[in-house]
Amino acid sequence: MSTSPGHLKSCADPSRPITQPTLVVRAGRARRNLLRMLEKAQRAGVRLRPHFKTHQSPDIGEWFRQSGVSAITVSSLGMAADFADHGWQDILVAFPANPRQADEIRALAGRIQLGLLIENLAALDAVGRLSAPLDIWIEVDDGSGRTGISWQRPADVFALAWRVQDYPHLRLRGLLTHAGRCYRAGSPDEIRQVYIETLGRMRQARHYLFEHHLQMLEISVGDTPGCTLSPDLGPQGGRPDEIRPGNFIFYDLQQLALGVCAENEIALAVACPVIALHPERGEAVLYGGAVHFSLDRVVSSPWFERGETVYGLLALETPEGWGDHIPGGRLARLSQEHGVAILPPHVLSSLHIGDLLYVLPAHSCLAVSALPEYRIIE
Amino acid sequence: MSTSPGHLKSCADPSRPITQPTLVVRAGRARRNLLRMLEKAQRAGVRLRPHFKTHQSPDIGEWFRQSGVSAITVSSLGMAADFADHGWQDILVAFPANPRQADEIRALAGRIQLGLLIENLAALDAVGRLSAPLDIWIEVDDGSGRTGISWQRPADVFALAWRVQDYPHLRLRGLLTHAGRCYRAGSPDEIRQVYIETLGRMRQARHYLFEHHLQMLEISVGDTPGCTLSPDLGPQGGRPDEIRPGNFIFYDLQQLALGVCAENEIALAVACPVIALHPERGEAVLYGGAVHFSLDRVVSSPWFERGETVYGLLALETPEGWGDHIPGGRLARLSQEHGVAILPPHVLSSLHIGDLLYVLPAHSCLAVSALPEYRIIE
Repeated sequence: MSTSPGHLKSCADPSRPITQPTLVVRAGRARRNLLRMLEKAQRAGVRLRPHFKTHQSPDIGEWFRQSGVSAITVSSLGMAADFADHGWQDILVAFPANPRQADEIRALAGRIQLGLLIENLAALDAVGRLSAPLDIWIEVDDGSGRTGISWQRPADVFALAWRVQDYPHLRLRGLLTHAGRCYRAGSPDEIRQVYIETLGRMRQARHYLFEHHLQMLEISVGDTPGCTLSPDLGPQGGRPDEIRPGNFIFYDLQQLALGVCAENEIALAVACPVIALHPERGEAVLYGGAVHFSLDRVVSSPWFERGETVYGLLALETPEGWGDHIPGGRLARLSQEHGVAILPPHVLSSLHIGDLLYVLPAHSCLAVSALPEYRIIE
Repeated sequence: MSTSPGHLKSCADPSRPITQPTLVVRAGRARRNLLRMLEKAQRAGVRLRPHFKTHQSPDIGEWFRQSGVSAITVSSLGMAADFADHGWQDILVAFPANPRQADEIRALAGRIQLGLLIENLAALDAVGRLSAPLDIWIEVDDGSGRTGISWQRPADVFALAWRVQDYPHLRLRGLLTHAGRCYRAGSPDEIRQVYIETLGRMRQARHYLFEHHLQMLEISVGDTPGCTLSPDLGPQGGRPDEIRPGNFIFYDLQQLALGVCAENEIALAVACPVIALHPERGEAVLYGGAVHFSLDRVVSSPWFERGETVYGLLALETPEGWGDHIPGGRLARLSQEHGVAILPPHVLSSLHIGDLLYVLPAHSCLAVSALPEYRIIE
């Protein structure tokens, strides 16, 4: 177990009592999730470059390393520097390059093989002028509408990719997208369709560039729903070169509600002390609020008929970590440090002040980001 | 300027360039907000015990100390310990006592005058058994429905307060409430009504206890809307003994939307680099996402007719910090590190990659909680 420098998460001795909202990981589940994704990528001949923003843990990173993973994705330069301190040598920052961080980029490019995401000329010129060795990925918007150049404007993608060649220290690696629109899909089938459609759009862009005398670029896609639900990561001959899912190591309620994972694949919960019991209104209040979970939520869930907001589902402690979620229970309201849990009477009547309730969070990445350390249960 | 230990926020040299999402404080505005609340409390003869969770800054804490404030409120034992390290001696943790943190409570009670909030017998017995000198505040629920014993059950309030006397190290201080329901009010007048009504409910509970042979307890109330909008903190002879507002030092969009503050009283913004421009869809993308702002938002705002979600309003940089908010501009979508800003065409066409946009956040306390350091502009 390590104490991590920088902003990464540390691991606490699992025998130390839990006193406040604490990330708990079921190692068996997480390792199975990892193995399943890794085997799928290996069968398909696709590089797995997992997104480490989900766990932000050097210790969990070691599980990946022991499985043969050597290239990773992160969401910030600070996180890249922290993982570089832990021996990671091939790191892609999957967030559009920010010219204001030129000094950090230059410093990091001298230490590791650093990949940057480029979606506009100004940022490309700014990083080009650094004369630092950098891998460049051009961000293509597959229709999700956040960042990247639209796949429908291949000439603009081409112009940006072509310009990379003006800077001898830059190495043009490929085209990258994040199919964020899969999170708006209504069913697993629709997610599979988005995955295939996105691949098609990326291949179309790559083909246009190749026809205009650019090298054959790599294609990097990556989102947990598509990568989990696609049985083979794409048809033979039509697969990406690289996938970058992150959330799959833990999954969470948003993935469960989308039909991406089963409940017994969720590997992360937040253990929260019960600080108040109000059976007269069917509620327990937990130490665990917006500063611990963020305010991400599942609005349209399969667990409640009328679309109640779910910040988390609730489970009781078991020797393995936590049990199945309590039917009818949900984390319903959050203020800064308080979480109000609605629970059925028979559960409420069995709870005591100081007990732990386990919250399966709506979005595990944000809970991890908010909390400083893990307990890992082997 | 200090670098703070523990989890408090540090202050960076304001001349250092901003490279990533950064808290920026306009000191003049914040000091005026402080002075206004302090003068009101002094005129009314009410103790101001400001909630330091809003700023979490030793440096901003000094402004309070220099104004004569000596008693403070925090939201966690960790924050209490951090402020104790900065010389604060009278600290109330305004969060229900958590028996799992008995060791922390005992350690801290040996260093400072520590106040705890009690709302149930189990927690009272747990802290009573510590044999540590502690100030005890009984939490009364004024109708807000989070924690505390309902003001409608004065006998239960009495039973808890009476039990405090069983523990010789515990000193019964008073009755405390947080009128969270004022955040559901529809107008400033309604907030003033809630403030007065809450005071009445607290006085009623205190009177019941006094009639049943308990000492005359203090009353502590505290929320920025009520304390800001009440002109005199209650009628002569009917005022609380203590107020605990926190947010007023900075205010934010939620307060602005409630009619609690004016825009030129908002003292905190988050400076965010522009990392992508997409004028074809009327959007700029900022480095600044859910991990920096949380996902708190203003849904029903005075700035947009159709109730669009507002995670923040947007302003341009000026010599004083930032200007008036850009009409028609809003932070409309957040993912983990990205923020999508909708902006009018004339603003979009004047922006460049690497410029800073200033986001007035929906909820300043949560943005502060998420970010590590301040720039303070004098």
